Amino acid sequence: MNNPVFNLHTFLSEHKALVNVHLEKILLELDSDRKLVQAMTHSLMAGGKRLRPVLALASARACGKDFTLALPAACALEMIHTYSLIHDDLPGMDDDDLRRGKPTCHKKFGEATAILAGDALLTHAFTILAHPHGLFDPVPEPQNLLELVAVISRAAGVNGMVEGQMLDMHPDRENKIKGNKPCSLDHLKNIHALKTGQMILASVVCGAVSVNAPARLRKQLEVYASHVGLAFQVMDDILNVQGDPEKMGKAAGSDVLKDKLTFPVVMGLGQSKAYAKKLADQAVDALDRFDNNADPLRAIAGYVINRDR
Amino acid sequence: MNNPVFNLHTFLSEHKALVNVHLEKILLELDSDRKLVQAMTHSLMAGGKRLRPVLALASARACGKDFTLALPAACALEMIHTYSLIHDDLPGMDDDDLRRGKPTCHKKFGEATAILAGDALLTHAFTILAHPHGLFDPVPEPQNLLELVAVISRAAGVNGMVEGQMLDMHPDRENKIKGNKPCSLDHLKNIHALKTGQMILASVVCGAVSVNAPARLRKQLEVYASHVGLAFQVMDDILNVQGDPEKMGKAAGSDVLKDKLTFPVVMGLGQSKAYAKKLADQAVDALDRFDNNADPLRAIAGYVINRDR
Repeated sequence: MNNPVFNLHTFLSEHKALVNVHLEKILLELDSDRKLVQAMTHSLMAGGKRLRPVLALASARACGKDFTLALPAACALEMIHTYSLIHDDLPGMDDDDLRRGKPTCHKKFGEATAILAGDALLTHAFTILAHPHGLFDPVPEPQNLLELVAVISRAAGVNGMVEGQMLDMHPDRENKIKGNKPCSLDHLKNIHALKTGQMILASVVCGAVSVNAPARLRKQLEVYASHVGLAFQVMDDILNVQGDPEKMGKAAGSDVLKDKLTFPVVMGLGQSKAYAKKLADQAVDALDRFDNNADPLRAIAGYVINRDR
Repeated sequence: MNNPVFNLHTFLSEHKALVNVHLEKILLELDSDRKLVQAMTHSLMAGGKRLRPVLALASARACGKDFTLALPAACALEMIHTYSLIHDDLPGMDDDDLRRGKPTCHKKFGEATAILAGDALLTHAFTILAHPHGLFDPVPEPQNLLELVAVISRAAGVNGMVEGQMLDMHPDRENKIKGNKPCSLDHLKNIHALKTGQMILASVVCGAVSVNAPARLRKQLEVYASHVGLAFQVMDDILNVQGDPEKMGKAAGSDVLKDKLTFPVVMGLGQSKAYAKKLADQAVDALDRFDNNADPLRAIAGYVINRDR
């Protein structure tokens, strides 16, 4: 770490607060008397880590530019992440009652409203990207805004997060059980690359696109992001086995109960921890040509594998 | 009609075919072995009227420009319309078994896959708008593409189609039953303006935006579209009472069974027909400064109230 005064805890809480202020501005433009808006607000403001938006802001900062240009993308990323959680929790999907320590959207507002609240958050994210004016200042150039729509929609869609969700719900059981051996690591990595990895990659890329960073920086940031994304998911699986339900806001061990394919299942708990550490180190190595503007990104790689929720 | 050789039937079938060719190109880029892609294909290629895409193409043509510039928006509009039908039909929503004469997406592929296929179609529509290159030629200018994202996402989202869906599922029953009188016409018009009107308006606007038409033309097209959109919905309600289930691909009378608020309920069948006719006439009147390039739009206003499905 080149910057001795950098404090990750302060960075995370300040940037999370900045994101929350702008998410509240977005919601305030809508009529809060409407049930649909209440359901969107319930899930969006339930107090998540805001990892994706913070990554976008930290990435813009690493490029040495005005990082507030990345706020529209940061908010859009969190809205899309939240929509994916709402739909993920539905009775027809994972059927979960708790999320971020609160009742899931459908538990509180009913199934139809939850489906529509997810649809509305996804759609509104693109409205924000296409027309951030009035809510954000400064805003990225039009051609950069259009690229943000492309990057985020690709990561969230049929070749990204949605397909990851399909694979997560219908993993290749034959592959898993074949000869009593667990599923291959490559198969599991592919599920996670799609389900969470692409959106984390997109978050970092969006920071660079928002400030119109050169392709050279963007490439290095992509390497960082792909390692951090996988480290994040390995750690998520570890926390699901041994985390504190109070801190996580959901029951521990739920993956095991649902017979989900996880890194601890495939490679054991100890190996999983070592793997997460190695991935975080590789992420930091990818930033070796960046100056101390990239210290937040470096610190986030450590945070991802040392968090407790 | 200024153009004696114009034939609406030919126009509709040719333009529908053109849209279908491009929707197939979009799907062909995806791996058809995947269940998610099969579910998207099942619903997208189930043979709808393609009214929204045809309106977009006819609107671009009315502006006297190369109407094929509107094909990316036309496809995106149909993908978003199809996603809304998939989610609308879900067990947690209207719980319908048939759509466009085929099993609904969840009946054929299961509920989880249907939710995700809807999500994927919505998201992929924005990918197409943000990056139509390779699939479409010519393509609109970047600033026009960004405006298409804004126009379509607003019409489809929290202040448009999704809110209309909320109101349709939870209409103000007190208002409806008050003093044994049916719900006010204004209330019903508001539901429909949101549920279907905004997307039909967006379709026409997208045609103008795709060809970068001047604001003057766009304003007149908006008046046309708001009347056609309402006429379409009044006719939909009429067909639900007296239509042929074979032609519509769904059961007649389903609105009555679900106690839905409709124009025949509020104003009677005869009045509803007269109202639809008046709206179509007003739509045509709005185009009085357009030349015969607008003949397709004029003819579509008539088609909307004379169709049998």
